Amino acid sequence: MAVQTVASSTSGSTVDLGPAAALSCRECGHRVPLGPVFACDKCFGPLEIAYDFSAYDTEELRKKIEAGPANIWRYAPLLPVPADVADKPNLNPGWTKLVKADNLAGELGVTGGLYVKDDSGNPTHSFKDRVVAQALEAARAFGFTTLSCSSTGNLAGAVGAAAARAGFRSCVFIPHDLEQGKVVMAAIYGGDLVGIEGNYDDVNRFCSELIGDPAGEGWGFVNVNLRPYYAEGSKTLAYEVCEQLGWRLPDQIVVPIASGSQLTKVDKGLQELIKLGLVEDKPYKIFGAQAEGCSPVSTAFKAGHDVVRPQKPNTIAKSLAIGNPADGPYVLDIARRTGGAVEDVTDEQVVDAIKLLARTEGIFAETAGGVTVGVTRKLIESGALDPTKTTVVLNTGDGLKTLDAVAGTGLTATIRPTLDSFREAGLV
Amino acid sequence: MAVQTVASSTSGSTVDLGPAAALSCRECGHRVPLGPVFACDKCFGPLEIAYDFSAYDTEELRKKIEAGPANIWRYAPLLPVPADVADKPNLNPGWTKLVKADNLAGELGVTGGLYVKDDSGNPTHSFKDRVVAQALEAARAFGFTTLSCSSTGNLAGAVGAAAARAGFRSCVFIPHDLEQGKVVMAAIYGGDLVGIEGNYDDVNRFCSELIGDPAGEGWGFVNVNLRPYYAEGSKTLAYEVCEQLGWRLPDQIVVPIASGSQLTKVDKGLQELIKLGLVEDKPYKIFGAQAEGCSPVSTAFKAGHDVVRPQKPNTIAKSLAIGNPADGPYVLDIARRTGGAVEDVTDEQVVDAIKLLARTEGIFAETAGGVTVGVTRKLIESGALDPTKTTVVLNTGDGLKTLDAVAGTGLTATIRPTLDSFREAGLV
Ligand SMILES: Cc1ncc(COP(=O)(O)O)c(C=O)c1O
Ligand SMILES: Cc1ncc(COP(=O)(O)O)c(C=O)c1O
Ligand SMILES: [Zn+2]
Ligand SMILES: [Zn+2]
Repeated sequence: MAVQTVASSTSGSTVDLGPAAALSCRECGHRVPLGPVFACDKCFGPLEIAYDFSAYDTEELRKKIEAGPANIWRYAPLLPVPADVADKPNLNPGWTKLVKADNLAGELGVTGGLYVKDDSGNPTHSFKDRVVAQALEAARAFGFTTLSCSSTGNLAGAVGAAAARAGFRSCVFIPHDLEQGKVVMAAIYGGDLVGIEGNYDDVNRFCSELIGDPAGEGWGFVNVNLRPYYAEGSKTLAYEVCEQLGWRLPDQIVVPIASGSQLTKVDKGLQELIKLGLVEDKPYKIFGAQAEGCSPVSTAFKAGHDVVRPQKPNTIAKSLAIGNPADGPYVLDIARRTGGAVEDVTDEQVVDAIKLLARTEGIFAETAGGVTVGVTRKLIESGALDPTKTTVVLNTGDGLKTLDAVAGTGLTATIRPTLDSFREAGLV
Repeated sequence: MAVQTVASSTSGSTVDLGPAAALSCRECGHRVPLGPVFACDKCFGPLEIAYDFSAYDTEELRKKIEAGPANIWRYAPLLPVPADVADKPNLNPGWTKLVKADNLAGELGVTGGLYVKDDSGNPTHSFKDRVVAQALEAARAFGFTTLSCSSTGNLAGAVGAAAARAGFRSCVFIPHDLEQGKVVMAAIYGGDLVGIEGNYDDVNRFCSELIGDPAGEGWGFVNVNLRPYYAEGSKTLAYEVCEQLGWRLPDQIVVPIASGSQLTKVDKGLQELIKLGLVEDKPYKIFGAQAEGCSPVSTAFKAGHDVVRPQKPNTIAKSLAIGNPADGPYVLDIARRTGGAVEDVTDEQVVDAIKLLARTEGIFAETAGGVTVGVTRKLIESGALDPTKTTVVLNTGDGLKTLDAVAGTGLTATIRPTLDSFREAGLV
């Protein structure tokens, strides 16, 4: 990859990103100061944030969180952001509903408590607002003035909106053939939106090149050179789920996989809560969900492989259509370590699951939510998921962004405005 | 419009709808017991809820509200719902963001503090979830098993979703030519969705007929026979705005008008907070916003009329396209009494305002939000709205539901995944 990706181990860090202490290599543990870098200069492994939480008292921390705002900043002491983050212009995402899904539980035969964490309630209606909010603070800290990203659609909208509100320029890159809702939403905030002839993996490769080129100078690519910061935002899903369950770990959680970043950070978040004493330690299982038409991780899981062989995506679940997922191996490791699994469903099952969730709980999910609900159903049928345990399913996006996936859904009848015409329609 | 307390003469009603004591005629004051009725049996005037708030201690009430859930049920003591409403299956709408819109304020020259109350954060992404949640409780109380409505689009989705989660059948009626997003969303929850050849006023007339017909027996039409309950949901917008301002009245508030129900209940909510001592009494002005292509109320306001002459709607702001608004005269009265105004903007100004709000604050509004932001701008330019005062603008819906209104918005450029192709696009 490009030259500017690795940190100089010498320069001292002066940025204030709260409890974030350094970047640490996930492969060899080498530490470098906080900076806009994402690969280890010793082994090229991915960098992640290392924290200093040593000063925290458990019960004081819990009280502080509970007294915090109804958004992700209630967890600011656990995130790579300055303490006054809530005062800076941003979209204040998070603290979305954890819906007790009793009707869905009835249909699926879950008796141990089934919950849908509904991230369609975020400002741009996907979980991406959480990760972008972290990257934005890193961009401020490092002096970037343009926000950028490669996106399967949701991230583009989240970056565009956050940049608009925070006064950044934005220039985001997407596959040229995304859903209308995602394209319009990404464009409406007034930044530049570039369609690339190719799939997401082509877009991502292009962005990695752009980062090493003068054209990309001064740009914070939220999921490339700011990726270590960005990724931490997904921890807040784990924090919220546990706090909303009454500071309790779920037994099982079903998470969608595109690059795999979200799933790995949900695990990191749960581990942190245990270490901090905010929840009681007990086993939990993490399940990964993909669409059959882009299932590199579930294919590797089922084959017992440690590495993920790239695929060429072909599925209606475009937001999850990453054929070469950066965090694939870590996902495999977490699913195996926790006793979970990675499973996939067909496009038809995705659509059925979208309708099932809507019909039972009044939640209109995008295709990614159809993937998690569909995989949950499949895992229950196969016995991999225990219906007597507390289970949380993530809905990470919004049905209004993937209308074409359910295009057959519409009017039951068209009538003239008369009682006779209504009776003829045969609905009563 | 004062807060009414119960007369001891109310009898016959055994339903538990919390502090709701009776229905009272807005024209002649005649009282009848709580029931699924909407017109006075003495004078045919519209009925509204009369409450008994006499037992409330101001500071105890404030504490109870502040300790309540992050949704409308924090205000359950002020709504026509049973005390245990939060335990019943519903969508738990409300407690949406009040966004300090400093960038927008800069563009519009507002110096006194400008806020956008962003109701796109509700479960089905419009303020309609608030009103439907009240109607649902009334439907439960009166033993209805089917929820219905006439809708300009948003209400249809809100009713469909609420019915699905609460285990009601639903059958909703819309003009046959609504936006795709609204049609799909209204249909996805699995209820019946009937398109009517005609405009909203035809749909509404049809529903009024259906209510008196055996075919509509046992049906709760949220905005017809349950309208007195339904309408109260809009009070929660007023409550939330004031609580989020630190228990303070705004000086000016800009509200969209379709039937006019929302605007009248925002005023009712503000009056109640004053009477209950939860905010300090001071003058405030309420401004109504319409699209020029459906502006019966602003036309009457400007002409100095007390009555509203029906219009045939022709505007992209379809959610506000009610040509014969039931609450028009009350809106005129409130705008005049508070020193506000009713204004309208062209479809082009609606689109410009949608883009302005997105570009400055990262909020993607539907056409109704374009109407309020556009009207705000126009009222500042004309001097009717004072830019040195605290001003709240309601965004009551979501841009993803009215994509066609901004259909020209899309990719800045399409490129091949190479640096050369990117440079040729001329963005850097
Ligand atoms: C709606 C939605 N859910 C889940 C994901 C998965 O994200 P990750 O790349 O972290 O696995 C994405 C990624 O774009 C998404 O858009
Ligand atoms: C988005 C939106 N805003 C505002 C309104 C106005 O509602 P009312 O009929 O209470 O004036 C509607 C009505 O459908 C709406 O859909
Ligand atoms: Zn390393
Ligand atoms: Zn009367």
